[in-house]
Amino acid sequence: MILLNPRVAGLSCLRCETDYKLDDLLEGCPACRKEGHAANVKVLYDTTQNVTINPSKSGMRRYAPLLPYASFPSLGEGCTPIVELEILARQMGLTWLGVKMEGQNPTGSHKDRMSPLVVARAVATGRMVVTAASSGNAGASLAAYAALVGLRCVIVTTPDLPHPWKKAIKMAGAELVIQSSPHQRWQYIEDKVKNEGWYPATNYTHPPVGSNPFGVQGYKTVAYEIVESMRNHMPDVLLVPCSRGDLWWGIWEGFREAAKWGWVKEIPRLYAVEPFPRLTRVLAGEDYRSLFPGDTLLRSIGGDTVTYQTVLAVKHSGGGAVTVSSAEAEEAQHQLARCGVYLENSGAAPLAGLRHLLRTGEITEKERVLLIGTSHGYKETK
Amino acid sequence: MILLNPRVAGLSCLRCETDYKLDDLLEGCPACRKEGHAANVKVLYDTTQNVTINPSKSGMRRYAPLLPYASFPSLGEGCTPIVELEILARQMGLTWLGVKMEGQNPTGSHKDRMSPLVVARAVATGRMVVTAASSGNAGASLAAYAALVGLRCVIVTTPDLPHPWKKAIKMAGAELVIQSSPHQRWQYIEDKVKNEGWYPATNYTHPPVGSNPFGVQGYKTVAYEIVESMRNHMPDVLLVPCSRGDLWWGIWEGFREAAKWGWVKEIPRLYAVEPFPRLTRVLAGEDYRSLFPGDTLLRSIGGDTVTYQTVLAVKHSGGGAVTVSSAEAEEAQHQLARCGVYLENSGAAPLAGLRHLLRTGEITEKERVLLIGTSHGYKETK
Repeated sequence: MILLNPRVAGLSCLRCETDYKLDDLLEGCPACRKEGHAANVKVLYDTTQNVTINPSKSGMRRYAPLLPYASFPSLGEGCTPIVELEILARQMGLTWLGVKMEGQNPTGSHKDRMSPLVVARAVATGRMVVTAASSGNAGASLAAYAALVGLRCVIVTTPDLPHPWKKAIKMAGAELVIQSSPHQRWQYIEDKVKNEGWYPATNYTHPPVGSNPFGVQGYKTVAYEIVESMRNHMPDVLLVPCSRGDLWWGIWEGFREAAKWGWVKEIPRLYAVEPFPRLTRVLAGEDYRSLFPGDTLLRSIGGDTVTYQTVLAVKHSGGGAVTVSSAEAEEAQHQLARCGVYLENSGAAPLAGLRHLLRTGEITEKERVLLIGTSHGYKETK
Repeated sequence: MILLNPRVAGLSCLRCETDYKLDDLLEGCPACRKEGHAANVKVLYDTTQNVTINPSKSGMRRYAPLLPYASFPSLGEGCTPIVELEILARQMGLTWLGVKMEGQNPTGSHKDRMSPLVVARAVATGRMVVTAASSGNAGASLAAYAALVGLRCVIVTTPDLPHPWKKAIKMAGAELVIQSSPHQRWQYIEDKVKNEGWYPATNYTHPPVGSNPFGVQGYKTVAYEIVESMRNHMPDVLLVPCSRGDLWWGIWEGFREAAKWGWVKEIPRLYAVEPFPRLTRVLAGEDYRSLFPGDTLLRSIGGDTVTYQTVLAVKHSGGGAVTVSSAEAEEAQHQLARCGVYLENSGAAPLAGLRHLLRTGEITEKERVLLIGTSHGYKETK
């Protein structure tokens, strides 16, 4: 059963804060768009009603009263463990180091927090097809959730999609469309959204606004879970693999809400880990709507764009951005695997970022550090 | 920190019920062995003390007071979701059908419920090396938990071990030893256990007794979790992929304990799903110590032997055994993937077994059926 959360009051632009009634503003805020900006919207909730969780439910459904859909299809996503890395912390001289195991979601990545809400919205609004532009994880996830509810799903990707993801997407019965570049994926989807009513889970505009705003709400639950399980000894710093910042913004929004509700006093600083300077260049003054080309083997956090939501979260969280090379991320992947935590290279990148920030002094050894391990290691073929 | 459960009172033979003091009876009950039998032992607990869980802990640690080690190394294993398969249930005319998602454990299989207890026992008794004879999942799991505590780990396997498991084992820093056959793996390990003090997670004797008895205790938590989350609408039937029956016996023992403590009134019937007749032949009268050769593509439930623990659990649970072909299991794998649940072929075998048992009438459409999905699908290369 799919049920809109009765607390949903509409949408609001992240940039100009214009409020809109509940709708699918898939290209971001129309007002900002007119001005040449690209800003995602967020879901607004009625704040006069009491905010509670549903402790009788497990997984992400525990937080359904805080999400756009109070009831949504589930494959058992969320409530992933936080594993303490004692030996590595000792080696690095850190007070506390942990990793949130997002690879333990149903299709093996954090994207499973977004897909159930996208699929819920698609079903609730009578859409016949869901689609995503994906380099792997988002596609495998959306395909699985679409299969769960029997919805047609088309994943638009590039020729280099590795076999494990390709197989997972096909096994779920989704169609794969191969486009020659990431930007051509977006054009393909734009056409289908505008002319055939397909419902997109991910961004398709350029400059990009980020993923489907109903889906992005799911990422708030990462923050809720951290607060619930670490309330009395919260991490000081989080490191998050980052491309167009859906997860990153969602975590920040979740912490903000948790602070507003008095669940937690202070919000951790958030550091975005990227494979070449993008957000770093924007923070140094470049326009967020520029193109920032670069090569990387970290396919799950590749892409040559930045979004407004990313800039917003970094400015307000008191954190920053850090660039890691593919070699550094793969070295971090090995180090984490040697501690029993086997992640995709992009998912291990936060450890490489942490080493940089310890060297520059932006993070100190006395701080409690939590890495967001976005995806497990079984998806890589090499 | 590793802490023996103060309730542990010793060991007891599953077959002759001889009690032993706490020890490592890695070749099963010595008394039965003298008589030419091969029977595993189980851990005995002091029943005069109150039995409680630890609700403040998440994952398998929640049940630590019911396990041999009250504190053990953790990668966030256990408390896997149970996903309802509504569309498939409707198609099959079933009242209720669900799958327990064991692939959402840290290394992607149920083996993660065994490894932390084996590693805890190894550290507590001062062992320097842990080892397992493995076709994939047990090896990847033990390697990760050994890495977590910094213990040397040697995985003994056969030349056909697929790349994804091989890579995961090596990434964790474990050594891979390739033997030409499954039985030669056991001989290799027997030598190392007897002559070099290696600590085995898995069986190495022939006829086999099953895996390390401290490890097998971890499988009880599958039953505890089912009882906790489904207490008011328990499944009538469970289908479990089965080779030498560690998981299968553990689940049965967990249900037995839960019934004894008044957590649940009736124990579900358990059906073992096997890739060619082994247990089926034993239930028809053959000696459980025979060899039962057969070919299968379902490598995680292959092997030509049966154990006494398997026979015991099937006799007392009121269930039985069902044989499924590789083609049937792979068809089931596709059907489950089309519902969003992407499992290894062996993990999907229970759905094929269910179809058989519905045809023979051993399971009826009115019954509530839970499949144990032992491992996720990303580990297969084809």
